[in-house]
Amino acid sequence: MSAIALDLPIGMRDLLPKEARARRSLTRRLMDAFDKKGYEPISTAVVEFESVVERGLTGRARTEIVRLVDPGTGAAAALRPDITPQVARLVATRLRGESPPFRFAYDGSVIRHGRDPARPRRQIPQAGVELVGVKAPAGEAEVISLLHAALRRSGLRRFVLELGLPEIARAPLATLPEGQRSEASTALARKDAAALKNAIRKAAPDVRRALSPLPFLFGDAAVIDEAKKVLQGDVASRLLASLEGVVRALARTGLTDVAVDLGDLRDFEYYSGVTFQALARGPGDAVASGGRYDGLCARYGRDLPAIGFAIDVENLEAALGARS
Amino acid sequence: MSAIALDLPIGMRDLLPKEARARRSLTRRLMDAFDKKGYEPISTAVVEFESVVERGLTGRARTEIVRLVDPGTGAAAALRPDITPQVARLVATRLRGESPPFRFAYDGSVIRHGRDPARPRRQIPQAGVELVGVKAPAGEAEVISLLHAALRRSGLRRFVLELGLPEIARAPLATLPEGQRSEASTALARKDAAALKNAIRKAAPDVRRALSPLPFLFGDAAVIDEAKKVLQGDVASRLLASLEGVVRALARTGLTDVAVDLGDLRDFEYYSGVTFQALARGPGDAVASGGRYDGLCARYGRDLPAIGFAIDVENLEAALGARS
Repeated sequence: MSAIALDLPIGMRDLLPKEARARRSLTRRLMDAFDKKGYEPISTAVVEFESVVERGLTGRARTEIVRLVDPGTGAAAALRPDITPQVARLVATRLRGESPPFRFAYDGSVIRHGRDPARPRRQIPQAGVELVGVKAPAGEAEVISLLHAALRRSGLRRFVLELGLPEIARAPLATLPEGQRSEASTALARKDAAALKNAIRKAAPDVRRALSPLPFLFGDAAVIDEAKKVLQGDVASRLLASLEGVVRALARTGLTDVAVDLGDLRDFEYYSGVTFQALARGPGDAVASGGRYDGLCARYGRDLPAIGFAIDVENLEAALGARS
Repeated sequence: MSAIALDLPIGMRDLLPKEARARRSLTRRLMDAFDKKGYEPISTAVVEFESVVERGLTGRARTEIVRLVDPGTGAAAALRPDITPQVARLVATRLRGESPPFRFAYDGSVIRHGRDPARPRRQIPQAGVELVGVKAPAGEAEVISLLHAALRRSGLRRFVLELGLPEIARAPLATLPEGQRSEASTALARKDAAALKNAIRKAAPDVRRALSPLPFLFGDAAVIDEAKKVLQGDVASRLLASLEGVVRALARTGLTDVAVDLGDLRDFEYYSGVTFQALARGPGDAVASGGRYDGLCARYGRDLPAIGFAIDVENLEAALGARS
């Protein structure tokens, strides 16, 4: 190497021909799978005004936004950290005059200031779909079976589809003071029952009852029956019933082998119902993730139910490379 | 529309399905044309350190860089304004151990802070090639005939390939004081002979002789003979001989119908020899532009001759839409 500093910023990558060719062919296969089911391609702006991006994102996702100054106006702008809120914006603006359902597919990179120092990733290539205007559980059955088909078509043979229900923890977590809430969330994410118990030791008894079983409630769909016994209250029973509805709807499409993890909270807080991930050996993180986001379009001015997922193409490549 | 402000920053665009589908199919056709001639796909980082980007760009191109703060390090970063310097960087770094020639193709967006208020464009979709390690005129013959083939394959029937030689004006322009230089450049760009005459009225006689004929030296290849008569000096005659060599090499590939414009200076000042543009009805600007950039790889630490072009995919769409 020369003495000239020519590094890329952390988390940025160039792809040489072999990598670029593999990436292209993988992305095409995913987009073809989406297209076959009537999901039409769209392409969204790579820079947006910060205020428009922030309308769609809360919590940790906001802290990951990479910001810049729009050179034309001096306004605060952002590199798109997530394509889903852009689709919600489109549905509420340019597509306002058209009737749902909308079925959209995209491939493109998002930019995030990820906080994992062990695995800094800033430019994340994604391929995903959004189904707007279809309620649970029909929407879940459609997009989760589409995810399954797309991953199979990509060549991935062994993966687990895991369902989650972050809302089940959201209300009890919201009752905790900030410090305890973040401690409890971290403990839940690690399924660390002892740390969770410690974090919520001063909470009200019903909050403790709602949260303490969660680290143990993962496995196959039978977990839902178990959860019904140990989680009390109207909200929990309504959420568990909706999850059960999704499991049944998936079974009708032939997808019976799904996992459930009720301790899985998710970063993106626009999810309103069942969330899901595809997990495989290789990457350190999910190959795909998605969920229902019934409140998101309304934030942009049009109230429609919606669900979608994004495949993390780099993680999928890692999983394909690791397959036995 | 709702009362919520949901505009995109100036110059940013979303593509709805019909537009996205057309864009995708057009880009694929271009990349297929490149692939057929052995140009291998690469994909470059969308964010770079500012210092690395600026190494490749000078003049107006630098003023168009959209900058941001790298969230990891606080270092100055930039959205890629041009893919060619990134290829020069790759050739000098990750590909340092490999032997030229290199033939690369890419498609992707660049981001620029364009200064034309009538037509603000910030996100510019491009598809292009770089041929590194092949000298003039063989490199010119190869990539200009590839551009011709790719545009034909895209469906464009009527377009003009125009050759330029910005170096012929560069040395005499460089002798002028800053204000007069920019006045003279603007006058040349507009072929405004009177304004040019005024801008250079205080210049040395040889500078006036070198610049004042340029607004008139455009047309078919016969312009080169005319230029040889009116432009004196070793540099001019060497440059004109190299242009003649390119015209002859193109004729051997079957491309005889080329235009020449010696008054065409170009924005990107890394060009070192013959430049070229594809012009068509519809867009307000070139459908494609390129040129030889023999000094650019050396700026990144590896001295290799190179030539390439980028098709402006949005301008090509406008030309395809305008075809009769």
